[in-house]
Amino acid sequence: MAHLLSAYCTSNLSPATKIHFKRLNQCSPICQSSITFRSSRSPDMVLRSCRKRSLTSSIVYATATVSQGIGSKTYSGSDQISPEPSSKPKRVMVIGGDGYCGWATALHLSNKGYEVAIVDSLVRRLFDHQLGLDSLTPISSIQNRLRRWKSLTGKVIQLYVGDICDFEFLFEAFKSFEPDSVIHFGEQRSAPYSMIDRSRAVFTQHNNVIGTLNVLFAIKEFNEECHLVKLGTMGEYGTPNIDIEEGYITITHNGRTDTLPYPKQASSFYHLSKVHDSHNIAFTCKAWGIRATDLNQGVVYGVRTDETEMHEELCNRFDYDGVFGTALNRFCVQAAVGHPLTVYGKGGQTRGYLDIRDTVQCVELAIANPAKQGEFRVFNQFTEQFSVNDLANLVTKAGKKLGLDVHTMSVPNPRVEAEEHYYNAKHTKLIELGLVPHLLSDSLLDSLLNFAIEFKDRVDMAQIMPSVSWKKIGVKPRTIAL
Amino acid sequence: MAHLLSAYCTSNLSPATKIHFKRLNQCSPICQSSITFRSSRSPDMVLRSCRKRSLTSSIVYATATVSQGIGSKTYSGSDQISPEPSSKPKRVMVIGGDGYCGWATALHLSNKGYEVAIVDSLVRRLFDHQLGLDSLTPISSIQNRLRRWKSLTGKVIQLYVGDICDFEFLFEAFKSFEPDSVIHFGEQRSAPYSMIDRSRAVFTQHNNVIGTLNVLFAIKEFNEECHLVKLGTMGEYGTPNIDIEEGYITITHNGRTDTLPYPKQASSFYHLSKVHDSHNIAFTCKAWGIRATDLNQGVVYGVRTDETEMHEELCNRFDYDGVFGTALNRFCVQAAVGHPLTVYGKGGQTRGYLDIRDTVQCVELAIANPAKQGEFRVFNQFTEQFSVNDLANLVTKAGKKLGLDVHTMSVPNPRVEAEEHYYNAKHTKLIELGLVPHLLSDSLLDSLLNFAIEFKDRVDMAQIMPSVSWKKIGVKPRTIAL
Repeated sequence: MAHLLSAYCTSNLSPATKIHFKRLNQCSPICQSSITFRSSRSPDMVLRSCRKRSLTSSIVYATATVSQGIGSKTYSGSDQISPEPSSKPKRVMVIGGDGYCGWATALHLSNKGYEVAIVDSLVRRLFDHQLGLDSLTPISSIQNRLRRWKSLTGKVIQLYVGDICDFEFLFEAFKSFEPDSVIHFGEQRSAPYSMIDRSRAVFTQHNNVIGTLNVLFAIKEFNEECHLVKLGTMGEYGTPNIDIEEGYITITHNGRTDTLPYPKQASSFYHLSKVHDSHNIAFTCKAWGIRATDLNQGVVYGVRTDETEMHEELCNRFDYDGVFGTALNRFCVQAAVGHPLTVYGKGGQTRGYLDIRDTVQCVELAIANPAKQGEFRVFNQFTEQFSVNDLANLVTKAGKKLGLDVHTMSVPNPRVEAEEHYYNAKHTKLIELGLVPHLLSDSLLDSLLNFAIEFKDRVDMAQIMPSVSWKKIGVKPRTIAL
Repeated sequence: MAHLLSAYCTSNLSPATKIHFKRLNQCSPICQSSITFRSSRSPDMVLRSCRKRSLTSSIVYATATVSQGIGSKTYSGSDQISPEPSSKPKRVMVIGGDGYCGWATALHLSNKGYEVAIVDSLVRRLFDHQLGLDSLTPISSIQNRLRRWKSLTGKVIQLYVGDICDFEFLFEAFKSFEPDSVIHFGEQRSAPYSMIDRSRAVFTQHNNVIGTLNVLFAIKEFNEECHLVKLGTMGEYGTPNIDIEEGYITITHNGRTDTLPYPKQASSFYHLSKVHDSHNIAFTCKAWGIRATDLNQGVVYGVRTDETEMHEELCNRFDYDGVFGTALNRFCVQAAVGHPLTVYGKGGQTRGYLDIRDTVQCVELAIANPAKQGEFRVFNQFTEQFSVNDLANLVTKAGKKLGLDVHTMSVPNPRVEAEEHYYNAKHTKLIELGLVPHLLSDSLLDSLLNFAIEFKDRVDMAQIMPSVSWKKIGVKPRTIAL
């Protein structure tokens, strides 16, 4: 439905407002004092956009006339209007869209009708070269992935190759793509990687913290209404002896009460970088009115999503090594190749887990139901809790059904973490938004194991054992293969 | 008192242990399996030092015989011994020792008999050049400062000029000086500076976070017993509606209880950088056994300390401008030059304050009573709470006594902060260690005002008003003078 809209203002529009008017009204010429244009957006949405872009010095009064002749409204640029949760962003920038979660998400959103652009430096592929690692699954180049996606579905995913720590690059990507939402997976995401040596610890914190700061500045400068969906981690909370809430906790202390950010106790330089991001983002929501959702994700397992299954060139990566491999995926590969499951320490370490099909579902729910202007919203993104021993038992049982002789070995824990502890983390907010979880089932474990068996000839047995120790990290760059 | 000590071990000593033995026993030859030496330290201290340096693979058994013939003990390298709070570190590295708090602290500790080295990149002086600012007081070069200190007292303060973000430089400084304690003031410390533009926001977080990471790695690599005293800020806590505790809070939630890091709500990229540091340091205490004290300092006022008063070339800097000047010091200069006191917004912003003579006292108390191995200790370092309006009233009253006609103006608050709020922060731990506060008194205010009057011809009136807005920060580098 097209709406005929007109707007005028009491003073000259600020440059930012003019640019925004131009975007809303891609064909019409721009006038400093009034414009009339057609838009497929509702008058309310357009007017809210206009107002939001007007700086405090220039108050915009705008009148909207729906082409059907219904309704006419006048708004003042200095009023507060809460955004409609139903407003659906269309253009989604996926930073880190070549990675494990990012690739699955980019395809899923493209399939669902969003305009998608991937922004990625591809440095994750470099890490594999440098450390002598490889995905269990053969993965195509990002260019071939996108060509295949287009040839199969007719849908174009745009690609911007570059480093978001380079602000000039990031800003050009923003200007070119004009995202309504940014999903930020573009971080070094391995705890062991961040604990290899000093230079990789520093890289992880610099890359993650500065990259996210740049994204925040780009949103502030380009489009303050753009919704940031940021991948955090459940590891930000550590393992406190009380229930873990979703981002905030109400504390009564000495007779007074406040709701405060949930205390953070991260346990690697990687997890810490996400804690830093969360604090930085929360501040910009308050100071600049950024709208943001922090998805504190649990450990992701699985590999297939509806879209990656369409063609082998769309296949996702699957890490099983001691650096990038996470518990359940690694156990399945170990079971497939007859390597004992490597339980670190006592195995009582309990975490939240989720299927990668739920990752893509959660992200879609977050962008379809954006945070309000100025809101720093935190969701705990996982569906079930397991201890490492629980997972080892499940894989052992599933392996037996397939005729595999699965053993478990306890290896000295390379990490510094509690191995027996209380753990009860809330995760209701995404369920309330409509998440229908894929719970870990026998059939999923069967298919994961069969998947690992299918690719077992590609397994490098030398990569299975933990190779990075939290306590032995030193200042010298580790140059040899792990 | 000299002690005759001997030690032997069951296996070859690790290189780190050998180096440590060598340091304890600077004259005797080193033997891999046993050594005998004289030391002014107590046998317990020496043996604990030996054991601490032995890696888990080489267990050291040591026997100590006090030269007076009393006592003989055997220790196993794998036991836990808690350090004695009475062990007094001698060699103190002051990172950022050319700055406002750092300079006063370096002189104070040198005067108290510590061996002091200053590590500083001197970039704070560059900020002044770039922004067209200057200290109210003329300050000498660091080289002249140190020459004057030596000529007055005979005491040598070593100087290492370089950037701690450059790990090679930092590590050489550690190797050369061999500190027992590191006091880390070496950070970009202005909230407004961090809010000038994107590049300065990024600089602040990179400089502070990576610099501190490098210090942690240097301590781990060089001497794990070295005590880190890190300057944090009361601003890490924000202004919660409950009492602020010292670093940790005990929370009872859904029937369970835990003591957790106090939630952080920082309100500038600078304050956030300190939050990030605190989380990083806490992790390394847990993972590596680093011993650290985080001094969450309030707003410092005053300029004179016993040592800086000795000679004009030892004079400390005094910032009154809108970027580096802090409330009380700035008000005194405004009163001295007849500029209205600039109260941001409603003036109900309440913070903890302390005299710079208490800063140096607190730091000395912290290093004389070091944190235990693996302990992340947090002290709230301030002596009194005031609102901005309280301070304006105090300065107005003190000004009248000196015949100054002091007015107050409310300026639009350039920051994003609550202007009326609850504030009650605990600060008992340093008092328990022996801090005797210099409370803000009429006589101190008189002398501060007289000090400002003495230098009022040096005041640049253009620098007094706030020039940095939290909301207007943009991505373009601000190149013109503020």
